[in-house]
Amino acid sequence: MPYTLLIRNCGQLLTLSGAATGQPLTGTALHDWQVLTDAYVACAHDRIVALGPMAELDAAQIGPGTRVLDAGGRVVMPGLVECHTHLVFGGNRAHEFQRKLQGESYLDILASGGGILSTVRATRAASEAELLANALHHLAGFRRYGITTVEAKSGYGLDAETELRLVRVAQEAGRQQPARVVPTFLGAHVPGPEYKGRPAEYLQMLANEVLPQLDPAEVPFVDIFCEEGAFSVKESRQFLEQAREQGFQLKIHAEQLHDLGGAAMAATLGAISVDHCDYLSEADAARIAANGRTVVVLLPLVPLFLRQEVYAPGRRLIKAGVPVAISTDFNPGSCPSKNLWLALSVACLKMGLTPKEALAAATLNAAWALNLQTEIGSLEPGKRADLLILDVQDYEEIPYWLGENPVQQVVIGGEVQDSE
Amino acid sequence: MPYTLLIRNCGQLLTLSGAATGQPLTGTALHDWQVLTDAYVACAHDRIVALGPMAELDAAQIGPGTRVLDAGGRVVMPGLVECHTHLVFGGNRAHEFQRKLQGESYLDILASGGGILSTVRATRAASEAELLANALHHLAGFRRYGITTVEAKSGYGLDAETELRLVRVAQEAGRQQPARVVPTFLGAHVPGPEYKGRPAEYLQMLANEVLPQLDPAEVPFVDIFCEEGAFSVKESRQFLEQAREQGFQLKIHAEQLHDLGGAAMAATLGAISVDHCDYLSEADAARIAANGRTVVVLLPLVPLFLRQEVYAPGRRLIKAGVPVAISTDFNPGSCPSKNLWLALSVACLKMGLTPKEALAAATLNAAWALNLQTEIGSLEPGKRADLLILDVQDYEEIPYWLGENPVQQVVIGGEVQDSE
Ligand SMILES: [Zn+2]
Ligand SMILES: [Zn+2]
Repeated sequence: MPYTLLIRNCGQLLTLSGAATGQPLTGTALHDWQVLTDAYVACAHDRIVALGPMAELDAAQIGPGTRVLDAGGRVVMPGLVECHTHLVFGGNRAHEFQRKLQGESYLDILASGGGILSTVRATRAASEAELLANALHHLAGFRRYGITTVEAKSGYGLDAETELRLVRVAQEAGRQQPARVVPTFLGAHVPGPEYKGRPAEYLQMLANEVLPQLDPAEVPFVDIFCEEGAFSVKESRQFLEQAREQGFQLKIHAEQLHDLGGAAMAATLGAISVDHCDYLSEADAARIAANGRTVVVLLPLVPLFLRQEVYAPGRRLIKAGVPVAISTDFNPGSCPSKNLWLALSVACLKMGLTPKEALAAATLNAAWALNLQTEIGSLEPGKRADLLILDVQDYEEIPYWLGENPVQQVVIGGEVQDSE
Repeated sequence: MPYTLLIRNCGQLLTLSGAATGQPLTGTALHDWQVLTDAYVACAHDRIVALGPMAELDAAQIGPGTRVLDAGGRVVMPGLVECHTHLVFGGNRAHEFQRKLQGESYLDILASGGGILSTVRATRAASEAELLANALHHLAGFRRYGITTVEAKSGYGLDAETELRLVRVAQEAGRQQPARVVPTFLGAHVPGPEYKGRPAEYLQMLANEVLPQLDPAEVPFVDIFCEEGAFSVKESRQFLEQAREQGFQLKIHAEQLHDLGGAAMAATLGAISVDHCDYLSEADAARIAANGRTVVVLLPLVPLFLRQEVYAPGRRLIKAGVPVAISTDFNPGSCPSKNLWLALSVACLKMGLTPKEALAAATLNAAWALNLQTEIGSLEPGKRADLLILDVQDYEEIPYWLGENPVQQVVIGGEVQDSE
């Protein structure tokens, strides 16, 4: 098949392939993926069709219709997969930053009607067009960081109508720009203000009135925030069971601020990911590792932004055999950052991951956390041609240049993105 | 005077002017600088010539030679001033990142011949052209972050010839691109390997053989690293006194890892800045505050990258009346980051600064730390036209969007920089 795109002279081609397969990467498999040196990768339309050492490049497939990029000895890798964001919201919470700096806790601000509820007010007040414009603005930012797939949770509407609007906006944002957007329903972020003190009734409303309006083929995931001030483990279990019965795959925000047991509960229900886990116990880590499929999504920028000292025990989770992914948790309250590269560095610095582990966690394992492991997250023939050329010579430099954006060129679905 | 450049419709114009003057900003003056809303700023060639509310814009000064930028209600501010970098070096230390992740300390790595001495080997082995190419690469990165002035220390040569070469490279890099480069002589980074165990003799060599070859009009600052494994307070005092006698202004790296008293010592000698100060005592903070001129340069990304929990007590320093600046400390060993915006955010999160304080610390007070306060660091008629248009509506958003680069457009010396 003639190549439509050829990237030649890759100093290092990070394939993320070649490790044990069939499950998310765990333990040594987080390290055992293949780095090809002096390599090429070739695409036909939106698919990768060949890759290997430069010496084995098949010149017969290069023709007048082949666009050729020369990586000049630099690193080439799969597009980053951002598996946990709250993409669609109105306004921002920059004014709350001062309150946090003066020592108020996330739960204090929540209790005083600030925090998430101020974003809910701004989101409800925004038009669908405004929300779409905001989402597109943030997606452009994600693409500049080489993020080619973005999960996008609802959760700032907290009533049936607005939550459905947020899902529509995420879907429309996916159609209007090249990065793939994967919507997740997080109506169960906190109880809606109209259901104050009645979390179970709120969840019942979501399960009975809202979930039936969503098609699991288009909105594959249902998520819930299991935490003090949000939903208990018991409430979360019942809601997730109802979602599973309606055909959705499950996610949970759990063990962010307290060890309530939500992550292990969700893993036993077969959740595709359990996210945060800063306070996860060793016993619950072992329970999650046992099922072999549930990915723990590490969100290292959240404790940094919330001025907390406790970070998820990434090193211990890997030792326990848990598959880990890394994400920003981009949202206006607890992590206003789209810089997933910074999250990789902080995962190394604060959670003890190595550079190779961090790279696998933000590509192939993040794809597993979105059930897209056959489509994205590694460089293999047949996978989607989402690729990055980085302005570094060695993958070890990626988490090393702290907070910087190493991306030189982004390819999405075989199309070279012009810088904006 | 007809305008050559006009930036109109600034939603907020952060002038950094209007606070008490004549000294670096301290205490409430860090907050009292003026933010103009719905404003313009006008330049003639490389100088700011007018600014004020849009309603007072003098249309008679706008002509065919005026380039007009519309800020569209966004924030406009002075170019960032980066007052502490180790710009010129060979290689990088990405491979050491793993050692640090495995728990080795900075001083452990130093003791084993790694750390700074591996950069010294790479720097000595590099040609002047290679060093220049590296410096220009990093300066392009700084400019993308809106950094329009960059201090650049020598210190990876550690012999007379190489140290002088590093100063020449910094000066040449300043000539070959638009950002201003301010060279600092840091031959006294650690004792050169040829002077192992003889730090005093090494300093004597620098004072007698190297400093006389430098012109304080072109290389205004002499710096020293006062720390265990580098130079003692006594050695540092003697060397700085010799440098002062030769007409240089003084800087010091002090209280980074231990409280030795170097910062207060240097302040009593009239040092223009004392940098790091993570372990500064309250008594020494009061001594520094007393002289009214010495700036404490906060380097919040260094403890983050070195996995240390101790950060300079920024909030207490401000309460004590100490003028503070913020910088990255960009260098290959303890802070490979050019993202000064991230340093502002971490200064807020870990040192308790407010957004307005952080902004003053990376502009006007950083200019004071380079003795360039009459030339850069604020927006006032007569000052150099180094300006940024940011993609945010409110200055509070600047440290809020964690790790992101808010820069939309950079103006250096009145010239609009095209994105690269
Ligand atoms: Zn979240
Ligand atoms: Zn330094």
